[in-house]
Amino acid sequence: MGMVTIDCADPQKLAAFWSAAVDTAVAQDWGEFVMLAPAGEGQVRLAFQKVPEPKVGKNRVHVDFETNDRVAEVERLVSLGASVAYDQVGVVPGLDWTTLADPEGNVFCVGQAH
Amino acid sequence: MGMVTIDCADPQKLAAFWSAAVDTAVAQDWGEFVMLAPAGEGQVRLAFQKVPEPKVGKNRVHVDFETNDRVAEVERLVSLGASVAYDQVGVVPGLDWTTLADPEGNVFCVGQAH
Repeated sequence: MGMVTIDCADPQKLAAFWSAAVDTAVAQDWGEFVMLAPAGEGQVRLAFQKVPEPKVGKNRVHVDFETNDRVAEVERLVSLGASVAYDQVGVVPGLDWTTLADPEGNVFCVGQAH
Repeated sequence: MGMVTIDCADPQKLAAFWSAAVDTAVAQDWGEFVMLAPAGEGQVRLAFQKVPEPKVGKNRVHVDFETNDRVAEVERLVSLGASVAYDQVGVVPGLDWTTLADPEGNVFCVGQAH
C-alpha cells in the first residue's frame, strides 16, 4: 500500500497543509493531482486530487497520527491550519485522542497511548 | 502518520480481507475495533472500526497500491474478495490503474507506472 489519496477542491492548498503536517515535501504537482514525497523510508505517501463534488458527510476512511505528546501535536497541527473537533480523553482504556479536521474538513485523529 | 482507519459494518470481515491484501496479520481485535500490524518497518497500519451508519457515496479518502504487474495484482485482490470497478489504461501518460472495491464497497486503486 503505497499511497493515500484525498479528494479535494484545492489540491495545492491541501498539499501545503499536509506536507507541513507530516513533514515532507511536494514531490510532483500536475495541477489537478499533487503527490507528496513519503515522509520516511517505506512510509505511505499522501496525494490530493481535485474533484468537482463537495465533501458530504463524515469521512469513511481517515488517517491517524500517533504521538507521545498529544497536546503539543494538536497545537502544532492547529497552527498549520487544522481545527479541533473534539477530545476523547479517559474514555477508552489505554488511548486518548483528539479528532481534528484539515482545511477542507477532512477528519483525522491524533492518538496517544498510555 | 501511523494508521489509516476505515469505518465499516463488520470489522473482522474487512480486517480478514485487508490483512490478506497487504500481507500482514491482525495485531489486536477489540471487537468493534480491529488493528492490523504494519505490513513492514515504518509502514502505515490499517484499522477497522464498526460504525452504525452505512457507507454513502464515494470514498473521499482512499488507499492506493503500487505494482509492477497490475493485471496479476488485480487478479490476486479479486481472488481475496475485491471487485473491479473499472480500468484506466492509456488515459493518463505514465500511469495505468484499476479501481476496485473492498467487500464493503470501499474504493481503492492499483496503479502501475510505465
